[in-house]
Amino acid sequence: MRTLNVALGDRAYPIHIGRGLLDRADLILPYLKTKRVAIVTNDVVGPLYLGRLQAALEAAGVRVASVVLPDGEAHKDWPTLNRIFDMLLAERCERSTTLVALGGGVVGDMGGFAASCYQRGMPFIQIPTTLLAQVDSSVGGKTAINHPLGKNMIGAFYQPKLVLADIDTLNTLPARELSAGLAEVIKYGLIRDPAFLEWLEQNLEPLMAREPEALAHAIEVSCRNKAEVVAADETEQGERALLNLGHTFGHAIETGLGYGEWLHGEAVAAGTMMAAELSRRLGWLDGADLARTVALFERAALPVRGPTLGAGRYLELMSHDKKVEAGKLRLILLHALGKAVIHGEAPQADIAAAIEACCG
Amino acid sequence: MRTLNVALGDRAYPIHIGRGLLDRADLILPYLKTKRVAIVTNDVVGPLYLGRLQAALEAAGVRVASVVLPDGEAHKDWPTLNRIFDMLLAERCERSTTLVALGGGVVGDMGGFAASCYQRGMPFIQIPTTLLAQVDSSVGGKTAINHPLGKNMIGAFYQPKLVLADIDTLNTLPARELSAGLAEVIKYGLIRDPAFLEWLEQNLEPLMAREPEALAHAIEVSCRNKAEVVAADETEQGERALLNLGHTFGHAIETGLGYGEWLHGEAVAAGTMMAAELSRRLGWLDGADLARTVALFERAALPVRGPTLGAGRYLELMSHDKKVEAGKLRLILLHALGKAVIHGEAPQADIAAAIEACCG
Repeated sequence: MRTLNVALGDRAYPIHIGRGLLDRADLILPYLKTKRVAIVTNDVVGPLYLGRLQAALEAAGVRVASVVLPDGEAHKDWPTLNRIFDMLLAERCERSTTLVALGGGVVGDMGGFAASCYQRGMPFIQIPTTLLAQVDSSVGGKTAINHPLGKNMIGAFYQPKLVLADIDTLNTLPARELSAGLAEVIKYGLIRDPAFLEWLEQNLEPLMAREPEALAHAIEVSCRNKAEVVAADETEQGERALLNLGHTFGHAIETGLGYGEWLHGEAVAAGTMMAAELSRRLGWLDGADLARTVALFERAALPVRGPTLGAGRYLELMSHDKKVEAGKLRLILLHALGKAVIHGEAPQADIAAAIEACCG
Repeated sequence: MRTLNVALGDRAYPIHIGRGLLDRADLILPYLKTKRVAIVTNDVVGPLYLGRLQAALEAAGVRVASVVLPDGEAHKDWPTLNRIFDMLLAERCERSTTLVALGGGVVGDMGGFAASCYQRGMPFIQIPTTLLAQVDSSVGGKTAINHPLGKNMIGAFYQPKLVLADIDTLNTLPARELSAGLAEVIKYGLIRDPAFLEWLEQNLEPLMAREPEALAHAIEVSCRNKAEVVAADETEQGERALLNLGHTFGHAIETGLGYGEWLHGEAVAAGTMMAAELSRRLGWLDGADLARTVALFERAALPVRGPTLGAGRYLELMSHDKKVEAGKLRLILLHALGKAVIHGEAPQADIAAAIEACCG
């Protein structure tokens, strides 16, 4: 088991990465305020892992309540969030009860937001079961639900007390979701870690084959990169925005097609290529850099082109982005492979051209 | 104008108390991140004061959007909260836009909670227009909406950047709401300020007559008391719970009758008498103390007896209280007039008897 500490002062917390962690109630117990836990999971992950986690906790004397939500980004909305509140209230959970999110990014986002709101805040533990959640959503405390007019528009910054990343749970992950997780892994290399980018180029096949050692390393380095960024800028006033490489374009794809059509990681991959193409037009990347990026995404079985929505529709959707300030769209672009920057000066025509060049 | 500082480290903020503050955009400008404001108000306060506030801000070059919600605790729910999000998104408000809550406690609670959630947090200014909001909701950062199973169950601790308490707005307050506000004012005397309790006994008539000097003093002393408690215990781990004198009983009244039947302050007055009666049964108060408390509430035209729901129903409703820990109901009781304590050991039979003695 590897352990990484997310340094956030009095909100610091550990991430344990390893095999068989789902049965390790001993890792959870020190973080409970009282011996009560409410587990939030979904109807895909629940049947696979809820029983095991619940049995381990109950064997340790913990009283467990749970709710099983419908799976998918399409349900990351208020009515589904309210099912968590209904369960917490029906089971008379207290603000000292710990909410445990067992599942992927959507379960983590909704569980975390529910924990932040229930009785104005209850303790929260994350057990991410997808690669995407293990390398991304489990670090940094961003929680949210979607609004018909925008993704992740309603939420909170709320840190977990503990994250358990059990690599064994990735064995049941559909191939498409493994790839989607790799999109965020590759992102860390692109934005700030050239050495990791090279390691990925050498180890993409073991990762795709789910070799535990390769996965553990990729998860640890990804989380360490994210933790460093988050520790420096918890509420995204500056540097943290760099983590959103490909996300402004990607969110437009997700919103434009309707939540759930494309996986988040797939949209990020295509969105990252748009950001890379725009960076090339600004003179920062060359054709070889783009080819290298495309190759890595393609080996990870990820889309490198977005759906044809029309550049105008992309720009319209992107104008709702949370990084818009004083009406100005700020994009995360690449000065080089391994070095992302926040840029608010890209000409609208260049943005549109980069989108068109990467669609269809 | 009097100014009080709420000392909460990097979340400290000032409360200005005085006359004609609604027109003082100069007081607001230093707290705006950008010259954009979204005002949340309701259909009672909006027609009276929205135009004036908006005109003052626009004259200072601030772009203003607004939403007018239906009035009342019955609308402190998700669908109404979502109307705020709809407006913020339709108007393309950014996370640097400042949300201004113009109205009573419900508007403040919903505006504050919306501000805490929108894009994971936007700046927030409160302009409370009821006595209750000026002395209670405007200090301490508690925001929330109701759930059918419990009051204020979903919310956040979120501090405003600034509070403007314009005493002139109290001139349009219905008499019943003025009284409801006085319930919380009297509460500060009862829980921790015997000198203020005596001042109130000497000045209740000027307060009921809305004399500005008396109101300004009562608001300032109330806010100072609350600010001291909140500064010591922002997230209610301990002492802050004392502010809930009468509230556990009172919430049972509000929930039991359906939100909006009794005003919050009315429920708190009757609930405080239940807490006082229980304190008498525990040997802490005597008959004279109770008579003094009853007299003060009655002079403020407040109810001193609760509705007849049956003690069993009260206890059932009270078991959802946020102060329940490990299944144990913790009540705020009075060791003496001017000294509240948290007590988790009152026998169930005594609680029931105190409720019955104060009903009908």
